Amino acid sequence: MSTVLDEILAANAQYVTEFGERAALPLPPGRKFAILTCMDARLDPAHFAGLKEGDAHVIRNAGGRASDDAIRSLVISHKLLGTQEFFVVHHTNCGMQLFTNDIMGDLLSQSLETAVVDEHGWHDVGQGPGSPEGRGVDWLTFEDLAQSVRDDVQRIRQSALVPENLPVRGFIYDVTTGGLQEVSEEQGA
Amino acid sequence: MSTVLDEILAANAQYVTEFGERAALPLPPGRKFAILTCMDARLDPAHFAGLKEGDAHVIRNAGGRASDDAIRSLVISHKLLGTQEFFVVHHTNCGMQLFTNDIMGDLLSQSLETAVVDEHGWHDVGQGPGSPEGRGVDWLTFEDLAQSVRDDVQRIRQSALVPENLPVRGFIYDVTTGGLQEVSEEQGA
Repeated sequence: MSTVLDEILAANAQYVTEFGERAALPLPPGRKFAILTCMDARLDPAHFAGLKEGDAHVIRNAGGRASDDAIRSLVISHKLLGTQEFFVVHHTNCGMQLFTNDIMGDLLSQSLETAVVDEHGWHDVGQGPGSPEGRGVDWLTFEDLAQSVRDDVQRIRQSALVPENLPVRGFIYDVTTGGLQEVSEEQGA
Repeated sequence: MSTVLDEILAANAQYVTEFGERAALPLPPGRKFAILTCMDARLDPAHFAGLKEGDAHVIRNAGGRASDDAIRSLVISHKLLGTQEFFVVHHTNCGMQLFTNDIMGDLLSQSLETAVVDEHGWHDVGQGPGSPEGRGVDWLTFEDLAQSVRDDVQRIRQSALVPENLPVRGFIYDVTTGGLQEVSEEQGA
């Protein structure tokens, strides 16, 4: 059994003892909104946005991108579970700005194991079989952080399955301060 | 400006004042694992699994499903950011057990606005334009909770881009107790 699993189960056993009135929470989010953000380990949406259990849907993927799957989740959130406002939160120092589809396709074709990273980027050290299938994937990387937020807000707004008037706002989270800054609609200079 | 946004920004301003040494956290997850779980508002992975900022990647979507996008995120997590173990966590009373692709397609074709729910399920009350595009989407609903976990663990393991020996474990989170229960590999009777 993994050490990590032991640690998770010990933390979980403690949580169960403190669970209290959370046991009676209803399925629909109490504060009627959804946050789409990055899987990055440094981000804790409950902390940075002040959420308690039961408050809001939280959707996370690599980059906090408005992928088809994120939009699937948002449409379920609004249509069936009553959220009325969406927030897209990308962040500074995001891993998705550090590679490209070509880099990822090359790395995976060399090996599936974790690559070594240095100041020049990621490198494989020949640890095992690779796969060419990474070349067929859009990894949803981006170069311009603010533009990536605008793009994803637009993609959600333009979905045929999201009502036109549903508010969708975009933010950048600063991993060095914990602060959220709204991204203006218009592209800057 | 929405009330929700005011509340989020007030909570965030407080978080910034308490941010402290989180400012120096590195990008790769310190505890080298990733959790894939549901967007459900009642779930707080940091609480139920004992995570601090910087510990682990957290990927969330409707159902905690191993969608192509979730696998995109997991592959980035392992290949570029060094996680060595994945945990799939579905939960009791999941909304994804309460509808089907047909139901969702019908509801969206009637209206994009939030449907009314009663003991017979969801109903539209004619609040606005619908779209037929919901019929083309696989909403990734499921009937059998334990089997949905097994299916998603298998889908991740069988991905051509995930190393064969990378541990992937499945769990059910009980929303009435906060507890995690591992799902056995074999299907029960």
